[in-house]
Amino acid sequence: MKVDRDAFVACYGGVYEHSPWVAERAWDGGIAEAGDLAPVFRRIVDRTGHEAQLALLRAHPDLAGRLAVGGLTAESAAEQAGAGLDQCTEAEFAEFSALNARYVEKFGFPFIVAVRGLDRAAILEAFRKRVEGTPEEEFRTALAQVHRIAALRISEKNVHPEVPRTPVERDDLLRLIGTALARNGASAACATAVAEMTLVAEGDGAHSHGVFRIPGYIAAMKAGAIDGHAAPRFISRQGAVLRYDAMRCAAPYAYDVTLPELARLTQELGVGVLSLANVAHFQAMWPETEWLAEQGLVGFACTANLPYLAPAGGTRPVFGTNPLAFAVPGNPPVAIDMASSTMARGDIMLAAREGRSVADGVGLGPDGLPTSDPAEILKGAQLPFGGHKGSAIALMVELLAGLCGGPYSDVAEDTSKVGLPVGAVFVMALSPEALGGEGALAEAQAFVERLRKVPGVRLPGARRHINRRKPGPLMVENKILAEVRALAGLD
Amino acid sequence: MKVDRDAFVACYGGVYEHSPWVAERAWDGGIAEAGDLAPVFRRIVDRTGHEAQLALLRAHPDLAGRLAVGGLTAESAAEQAGAGLDQCTEAEFAEFSALNARYVEKFGFPFIVAVRGLDRAAILEAFRKRVEGTPEEEFRTALAQVHRIAALRISEKNVHPEVPRTPVERDDLLRLIGTALARNGASAACATAVAEMTLVAEGDGAHSHGVFRIPGYIAAMKAGAIDGHAAPRFISRQGAVLRYDAMRCAAPYAYDVTLPELARLTQELGVGVLSLANVAHFQAMWPETEWLAEQGLVGFACTANLPYLAPAGGTRPVFGTNPLAFAVPGNPPVAIDMASSTMARGDIMLAAREGRSVADGVGLGPDGLPTSDPAEILKGAQLPFGGHKGSAIALMVELLAGLCGGPYSDVAEDTSKVGLPVGAVFVMALSPEALGGEGALAEAQAFVERLRKVPGVRLPGARRHINRRKPGPLMVENKILAEVRALAGLD
Repeated sequence: MKVDRDAFVACYGGVYEHSPWVAERAWDGGIAEAGDLAPVFRRIVDRTGHEAQLALLRAHPDLAGRLAVGGLTAESAAEQAGAGLDQCTEAEFAEFSALNARYVEKFGFPFIVAVRGLDRAAILEAFRKRVEGTPEEEFRTALAQVHRIAALRISEKNVHPEVPRTPVERDDLLRLIGTALARNGASAACATAVAEMTLVAEGDGAHSHGVFRIPGYIAAMKAGAIDGHAAPRFISRQGAVLRYDAMRCAAPYAYDVTLPELARLTQELGVGVLSLANVAHFQAMWPETEWLAEQGLVGFACTANLPYLAPAGGTRPVFGTNPLAFAVPGNPPVAIDMASSTMARGDIMLAAREGRSVADGVGLGPDGLPTSDPAEILKGAQLPFGGHKGSAIALMVELLAGLCGGPYSDVAEDTSKVGLPVGAVFVMALSPEALGGEGALAEAQAFVERLRKVPGVRLPGARRHINRRKPGPLMVENKILAEVRALAGLD
Repeated sequence: MKVDRDAFVACYGGVYEHSPWVAERAWDGGIAEAGDLAPVFRRIVDRTGHEAQLALLRAHPDLAGRLAVGGLTAESAAEQAGAGLDQCTEAEFAEFSALNARYVEKFGFPFIVAVRGLDRAAILEAFRKRVEGTPEEEFRTALAQVHRIAALRISEKNVHPEVPRTPVERDDLLRLIGTALARNGASAACATAVAEMTLVAEGDGAHSHGVFRIPGYIAAMKAGAIDGHAAPRFISRQGAVLRYDAMRCAAPYAYDVTLPELARLTQELGVGVLSLANVAHFQAMWPETEWLAEQGLVGFACTANLPYLAPAGGTRPVFGTNPLAFAVPGNPPVAIDMASSTMARGDIMLAAREGRSVADGVGLGPDGLPTSDPAEILKGAQLPFGGHKGSAIALMVELLAGLCGGPYSDVAEDTSKVGLPVGAVFVMALSPEALGGEGALAEAQAFVERLRKVPGVRLPGARRHINRRKPGPLMVENKILAEVRALAGLD
């Protein structure tokens, strides 16, 4: 399934209308097939001569004009229909035709506009204005529109194949997971906590952190990395800092015990920190920070894991993928949850299985050189998101978790043999009122509302929160469901 | 000074030995001239046919052999001399020659190895081993070495021109800055605090946050954005959270008053937060977190500023460049200080002045499309580092600073007219002992020491800490020095 030149050109050759040479030149010029293609394509066109640019403009269809006679690429036809250009009134059609004739006569190429998001009236309006421009202006404008069209077309190319799933009622799924865990070494309290957290992840559509993780939890219990019967033990409290030893219990159970304590402390002292050592953290981090947000508190959490990530400038894994989470109360809350790596390790594994390449900046091979081969990266090192700045975030996470009991990722061992880390989590809660007085939270929420309305912006956690509102059964991947049913002794 | 094809090929044509076609194809294929070139170049070679790859291998010099007769590119000559290959003993030279003859006879191309970091013994050792390999293995190995050489050569291409500077004794500089500030509206306490913080930045070699900022401070005082005679006012304390209103005083003065309070509170309660509203923050953030680290505390600080940064997916500026800082005690401390933008705004301004292009991902033009033209980005929007993850960090910073009093960057106004923001700072301090007990800090420091020894890794703040140890006068940019002397009434 490795992409080759023919496949790449077949996919992207139509991004610039009737001009596959752009995609061809990009391929030969070393483009990363999984990278950000639009600026590369744009520069290819910008660097070519005036003649080739003119030919590119001339390769475009007459707006509306050719609807009757065909000759559009599939992309153009869909775009023009989307703008309602296939439903012109007679008067509109007549004006389009007249403008077209004047425009082509004056400039020597057809009128080009990125129609997506525009209606017929807006397009006509732009047409009337642009036909009055100078040839130099209009050449630049037309080329800019061509680039905009190309960027939109590229952004629509990314589709992922769906895996087969089966609907399972929530209560049934909860029982199934609980049974699988309890039959394999978890106490009732541990099994319930993990099952509930798993259901939250599945309900949010975060399949990679849902039922998918249960076989790993169980393998880790069998390997002795997780103690299914342990309970978190209070170590000490200094002022607003609580210390617990989770005794290698699963994180969801540890949180059931410790987060209410943290929330109480924070309500009293304005800020509270939970230093939780020795916990098996194998799940998303948003459930703990979102739980704090539900109590009206700002939540922050982070943890280190296993040596997967090379620091910026380095070639060997030293940091973990070091996730951090942050939540602010709201309905829905703002809920950041992100690893410090460019790409999730699970997604790299998936790409390796499917023979796809990954983008530049995802990782290094065992030889320390950049590669887009995911199998090589798994043997080598992942890279932090955003270069040395993401590397600094990974370092901050490493130190906060390390100070809470470690181990530091460079010396962490995978005692579970399934990549399930046992280590420390740093959790902090803040009272919005303590920080900024009565109105502080409302102002933060007003900012978030303004942000939510910015076109193109999706707030962290938004997709999960939309999924969360969907009622009915959960869709579980068939393969995973069968595995968990077997672990529950049902098949 | 815009890079064109000829300049690009002149610069990078020798990265692959005697094979400028790689750089040419990269240019025509839309490479970002300011981006990460190595993986693009590598793919160009990997995607070309076996014949062209063989020709590339054959274009390489015989190791050592050609030293006597010339014919090396400048790059090769320097590399081979660096490995001491120009100082072979007669016996070594004889063995090199013999191995060379066998190798070329067997494989049909010369022995290629990335010599940087190796000595003659290591090279001979590799040579003896590789001459025994199969042709397929050795073709792959040779190509990998060629890529490694290219990556090293590319990484050495980045050099920046030095600006003219004058040595100034530290005490003289302190007095000069203090006088300039005091003559232009600052109280003695404010002038002293700002002058001292400026000297710290200059001493760290962080010129962009040093004397360079003084004219801006003064302009902001004249515009009424900074109040040079204000003093921070205590608002309230809830538990471990202190609230102050800085009354538009300059940040260094506000910290003189508030940070000792925060440190005391943190020593007592394990964690402390300073919510500092209404402060003119126009400096680096590391001085406050490093000051906390000097007290044995972990420090974290962040602030928002003016609408410069588009959220991931958006096209208009909404966030500030939103810096954050983090420090852990040590000698030197770990001291992260970074903006949430891909590139510092000052560096974009510099690139615009010098007519250089910037890398993909730095920003968008006013039309919302990606551009590598810095002048367009200054009119449009900067982008967060690391895509949606960096955008999430910018959002977290925005909310933490916003909760401390804002204003949120999307509605922040530049009352100073010189880009000096007045807003809130969130500062947190943590006691390492409260988090992890007696040994926690020592273990963190041991981790940092291991990290410091990882080849290629430079810890955040390391360059500043090296500069800090240099004794003697500070080197101040002539142009800035003249400006500050004028403001101090000296010229």
